[in-house]
Amino acid sequence: MANITKKVSWSSRADESGATGEGTPLLNGSEQPRYSRQDSLRGRPKEIPHNEKLLSLKYESLDYDNSENQLFLEEERRMSYIGFRCLEISRWVVCGLIGFLTGLIACFIDIVVETLAGVKYLVVKENIEKFTEVGGLSISLILWAVLNSAFVMVGAVIVAFFEPIAAGSGIPQIKCYLNGVKIPRVVRLKTLVVKVGGVICSVVGGLAVGKEGPMIHSGAVVAAGVSQGRSTSLKKDFKIFEYFRRDTEKRDFVSAGAAAGVSAAFGAPVGGVLFSLEEGASFWNQMLTWRIFFASMISTFTLNFFLSIYHNNTGDLSNPGLINFGRFESDSVAYNLYEIPLFIAMGAIGGLLGALFNVLNYWLTIFRIRYVHRPCLQVMEAMLVAAVTATVSFAMIYFSNDCQPLGPEHAEEYPLQLFCADGEYNSMATAFFNTPERSVRSLFHNQPGTYNPLTLGMFTLTYFFLACWTYGLTVSAGVFIPSLLIGAAWGRLFGILLASITSSGSIWADPGKYALIGAAAQLGGIVRMTLSLTVIMVEATGNVTYGLPIMLVLMTAKIVGDYFVEGLYDIHIKLQSVPFLHWEAPATSHWLTAREVMSSPVTCFNRIEKVGTIVDVLSNTSTNHNGFPVVVLPVFSPRVCVGGLFFLSACLPALSCQVFVELARSRLTQRKLQLKDFRDAYPRFPPIQSIHVSQDERECMMDLTEFMNPTPYTVPQETSLPRVFKLFRALGLRHLVVVDDQNRVVGLVTRKDLARYHLGKHGLEELHLAQT
Amino acid sequence: MANITKKVSWSSRADESGATGEGTPLLNGSEQPRYSRQDSLRGRPKEIPHNEKLLSLKYESLDYDNSENQLFLEEERRMSYIGFRCLEISRWVVCGLIGFLTGLIACFIDIVVETLAGVKYLVVKENIEKFTEVGGLSISLILWAVLNSAFVMVGAVIVAFFEPIAAGSGIPQIKCYLNGVKIPRVVRLKTLVVKVGGVICSVVGGLAVGKEGPMIHSGAVVAAGVSQGRSTSLKKDFKIFEYFRRDTEKRDFVSAGAAAGVSAAFGAPVGGVLFSLEEGASFWNQMLTWRIFFASMISTFTLNFFLSIYHNNTGDLSNPGLINFGRFESDSVAYNLYEIPLFIAMGAIGGLLGALFNVLNYWLTIFRIRYVHRPCLQVMEAMLVAAVTATVSFAMIYFSNDCQPLGPEHAEEYPLQLFCADGEYNSMATAFFNTPERSVRSLFHNQPGTYNPLTLGMFTLTYFFLACWTYGLTVSAGVFIPSLLIGAAWGRLFGILLASITSSGSIWADPGKYALIGAAAQLGGIVRMTLSLTVIMVEATGNVTYGLPIMLVLMTAKIVGDYFVEGLYDIHIKLQSVPFLHWEAPATSHWLTAREVMSSPVTCFNRIEKVGTIVDVLSNTSTNHNGFPVVVLPVFSPRVCVGGLFFLSACLPALSCQVFVELARSRLTQRKLQLKDFRDAYPRFPPIQSIHVSQDERECMMDLTEFMNPTPYTVPQETSLPRVFKLFRALGLRHLVVVDDQNRVVGLVTRKDLARYHLGKHGLEELHLAQT
Repeated sequence: MANITKKVSWSSRADESGATGEGTPLLNGSEQPRYSRQDSLRGRPKEIPHNEKLLSLKYESLDYDNSENQLFLEEERRMSYIGFRCLEISRWVVCGLIGFLTGLIACFIDIVVETLAGVKYLVVKENIEKFTEVGGLSISLILWAVLNSAFVMVGAVIVAFFEPIAAGSGIPQIKCYLNGVKIPRVVRLKTLVVKVGGVICSVVGGLAVGKEGPMIHSGAVVAAGVSQGRSTSLKKDFKIFEYFRRDTEKRDFVSAGAAAGVSAAFGAPVGGVLFSLEEGASFWNQMLTWRIFFASMISTFTLNFFLSIYHNNTGDLSNPGLINFGRFESDSVAYNLYEIPLFIAMGAIGGLLGALFNVLNYWLTIFRIRYVHRPCLQVMEAMLVAAVTATVSFAMIYFSNDCQPLGPEHAEEYPLQLFCADGEYNSMATAFFNTPERSVRSLFHNQPGTYNPLTLGMFTLTYFFLACWTYGLTVSAGVFIPSLLIGAAWGRLFGILLASITSSGSIWADPGKYALIGAAAQLGGIVRMTLSLTVIMVEATGNVTYGLPIMLVLMTAKIVGDYFVEGLYDIHIKLQSVPFLHWEAPATSHWLTAREVMSSPVTCFNRIEKVGTIVDVLSNTSTNHNGFPVVVLPVFSPRVCVGGLFFLSACLPALSCQVFVELARSRLTQRKLQLKDFRDAYPRFPPIQSIHVSQDERECMMDLTEFMNPTPYTVPQETSLPRVFKLFRALGLRHLVVVDDQNRVVGLVTRKDLARYHLGKHGLEELHLAQT
Repeated sequence: MANITKKVSWSSRADESGATGEGTPLLNGSEQPRYSRQDSLRGRPKEIPHNEKLLSLKYESLDYDNSENQLFLEEERRMSYIGFRCLEISRWVVCGLIGFLTGLIACFIDIVVETLAGVKYLVVKENIEKFTEVGGLSISLILWAVLNSAFVMVGAVIVAFFEPIAAGSGIPQIKCYLNGVKIPRVVRLKTLVVKVGGVICSVVGGLAVGKEGPMIHSGAVVAAGVSQGRSTSLKKDFKIFEYFRRDTEKRDFVSAGAAAGVSAAFGAPVGGVLFSLEEGASFWNQMLTWRIFFASMISTFTLNFFLSIYHNNTGDLSNPGLINFGRFESDSVAYNLYEIPLFIAMGAIGGLLGALFNVLNYWLTIFRIRYVHRPCLQVMEAMLVAAVTATVSFAMIYFSNDCQPLGPEHAEEYPLQLFCADGEYNSMATAFFNTPERSVRSLFHNQPGTYNPLTLGMFTLTYFFLACWTYGLTVSAGVFIPSLLIGAAWGRLFGILLASITSSGSIWADPGKYALIGAAAQLGGIVRMTLSLTVIMVEATGNVTYGLPIMLVLMTAKIVGDYFVEGLYDIHIKLQSVPFLHWEAPATSHWLTAREVMSSPVTCFNRIEKVGTIVDVLSNTSTNHNGFPVVVLPVFSPRVCVGGLFFLSACLPALSCQVFVELARSRLTQRKLQLKDFRDAYPRFPPIQSIHVSQDERECMMDLTEFMNPTPYTVPQETSLPRVFKLFRALGLRHLVVVDDQNRVVGLVTRKDLARYHLGKHGLEELHLAQT
């Protein structure tokens, strides 16, 4: 058992350092923490090449547990019952606003994309029609490719040069944020602007991308902005919602924003709530969930209402989301018991294809991290992909000879006649010469016989590779719609083949049903979401009876896919070496105790501490856990007990406004430091290095009592890892003090210490921490 | 501020007793705990008349935190990775079984009710038809009343005499169970049998009840049974799933069972999951939720499949739940923006009517608790209600002259012609002479003009009072369907009135839409469920677009209703004086700290303790918290520190099989006590009084190290109540040890100590604990 020997070697190390800390905790020590020491001992270079087995130390954690220091408690105690009611009402107002604004943004994106894409396709269509008669279609191809590349260039430039965090779908980043990892700049206004602009450009640019994933990120940014009642980027403070300026409250609103985003994207308010809970919430709170649901509902409703105005049927609320799967009537596409095994088989195929997709994308991402890290290169790659996408699409359409009659009932937006007879159109063009959302809907709902199998096969193949190449480009774009499209194509193919094999029985007649199942299977195989995805799919189809097959398909896809490789989002989170905490401690981790997991020795402060010491410790960048136990020396015993936990963030605003020094000088404050000072500075506390402290000031003493949390959570050294893990996950902790029998500090467990342990193929594995 | 003075008086008491405990925790003390002492000091009688301001001490709590004692940890550490995988698979198997069996039970109930009710209505119909011509309809009335009373008598007798816990819908009981309160006999096989029999009798007996609520209870019992792999009632142990024999695991499965019940009842798998989470889960775990969803899906699928066989369309899966709201087509019953205010107004009406219902039922329940507590009386009351229901229904039908043409498209099951012309039927009879499920569906879907307003008004009025009288009878029955029916009736009336006022516009044409909204409003006003109810309603209608109005209506109903009185389930929970923990600590409770809340002094054990002492402490029924800190005397300090937490339940099986005494005698065990011994006894540990311990044995010493949890959660005395509350709620704790700076035990916070504080109309209120 490899994991045991590994454990032993680690635990002996931990015991050793634990022994150092047991006698007297090192007060104000400023030596390197053990991670870097360990690393240098093993002769590892400072700059470590990208490696899955590492956790990066550059990510700070968020604290989702209220630090109940004196200031906080005083405020809470001052507040009356009416005050709490008002607070509750303002939470609802904020959630309503979040939903409304998210809906508006979705509406804006949708209208702009529809308009621009409409113009583009009309221009290209006219051009193609012109040159089909004259000859020289290569000019049309060039026009198409140039148009696409131009749009994509704009999208890639704003992302690569102005806000790289806006790249991709944003779902991994929001997952991390809700999990408790601080991803820099992820919820800023600038990110939102770039994201919205970027997603419009990439969709109009004809890339194999969707505009749905980015909506989740957009909703989260809206939530973070609205709930704080100010914009730091715009230097505008509305002086409202000041109570919400801390991690705990902000996280709750960001959950609501993400849910509103899902809701706007798919018209799936319940799916949005479940998405937020699946990804973010550790502690399920009834009122919070209800507010999240409210935000989701308002979001889908707003989108619906404004789209109805845009489409000139004001008040008709039948457009619940950006992507609309169209109406699945239970009668026409009913399923029967004996189809269930077929669905499960499709789930397995989806899992396999999804795993393939993820592996290819993993390699590609590694390649990108190594070689394509300069913004210019990234823009060029994006333009290349756009040009290739256009070329491939054109070639597929050109060489396809799948002509279909152009019936009046067909609502093809841009039917391309090309070389088909009059009154007919090219069927391949329905799939390629269209926004992906429309293609998905065509695959679900077009009459049987609209596509021939070869068209579908070729389309699946090319689109699979295009989508795989596209995900991870430096553009804002989601992977939901391409996945659905690939799945719908092979699902429909599957349905057609089935019908041709059995050749009878009206139950097989509609390949649209199989397109839906295929879409679910493929999406499930790639992203591996479970409950929320089922509900999102069910809500998007508007038909509850498909719940069971979709669930079975998603489960199968997940099980099969997980056998090979993780989900796409998890892969990207891992590649960023983010210290992500999963839901439960690894199953076989009962061996480990807090003693082995904790960092030790810990830098502690006294309740009354010299300013110089504090500044030195805080300036030391290698002390990256930001939490410092405050120890007391009880009069009746010479032992040093934990008396509180003091946070770096609690100190910084004090330092920045020099109030802290005043405070230190007089010991009797003139102006009492208030919670407001912290809130004004939240969340961008100035770095300690930016503050000048004179030698005189360094000699002053400072009383930390007011700022520390006097009742931090503590655990004994013998606590098992699963127990520590549960405490972290359920309470959203960032630090946990480990004490001995006598309540003396022996170590500190941080999120990163826990995130190091994960379950690999061969049992428990331990990642290393490094400054990457 | 009344709450402050109150607080002060209590805190001085706590300080005083805290001071006693601070120096040296009372070892093995066996005096009365302070509750009863306090009570007797105030001269309160032993038998306290029913009072809302009391919490009963008779309910034990469940422990949803794993007691990580040595035995448990040893087992976990022995288990391999494969072992954990098998465990995970068996969890899925159990959930599948739960879903399957719950679906079967639902199917059984449905078929039996349909058959018996069909026979009953046919007999009565023929009789009425016979006597309509001849005259002497009073004979028909007597026949109807006698038939009803007979069925109800059977239902009431089995409940009142065999298993009183099976009375009512069972939802309050399951809420309590999931919350962590042990309600005796609530998940036993006998309860299930009585419940199923009882619900069939009461529905067939024509009471104003539904069979949906009891399904939730049934699902929970199935889950508790299946997951334990044995039936204690049947004395059958299958020797499987032994790992799941503890509170934590059992709770998870009961959540799944409740969800499966909802899913079977309403065809709402997602609603089921949300119901379980809303009511039960404190810590959201992704895999658990996914399993719950699986159970729900299997349940609705099983029901569906077997009903399809019964209805002779094998394989057609279009009957997702017991109650089927029928198909709401978006086209025919679309709503528009300007209807939203109307819906909100209906929500307010629902809230008002719901509050009235709850207040009336509250008074009635108080009356019942005081005067109708003998089983015979209870049975007689139930029979009286059945007879009155039949009589009132008959009178309503008799005096109504709302004749409607009997079209072939009407699928009236039992059309009563009565005094109508040939080819017509009595419309009042559609509502009264039918199972409530069918009546609801008729109100939703019958053509406009099928009911005249007077009929609906009279029906609402009578059914409201009948349903109110019926809920709380000693029969198994739910309140969902009656609520829906009342709401659908006045909702339809509202719609008809609207249409007659505006007299134009096809949008008002369909009163079915208003019936749906009215049903939601009434149900929301009575039960005050929020998120889950929205989803249940949406799933039952099979139409996602109704999400927003239903949510708004439920929110309004809840806000309006909460202004007057709590929800029906909460009222009944409160009337039972159950120590129920809400989601969050009362808003204004930051004043309180662990010091004021805790029970102190605490009875502690030494690590090695005399058997006699243990037996004495355990036999003392007044020590009702069941958790005893184990203190250690460290060699280097004479202070007594908390070294673990020892549970009564951990000790009892040892005592019962006398192994304990052996162990005590030899100090070197012959046969090591194993986790299996505890599991075999779980959950019905024999009372300590049943074990004879001789004087010799009393003098032996026993080592508690193996059975205690060496790493209990502890908090400092200064911890604020909200922080303690959060810890309890998030981790599912039962006890929390309060320690001082030096880790010495000063008190113990139990669930009941926290449940005492609640937010009343005038701020924080404190309930008293008493042995009622």
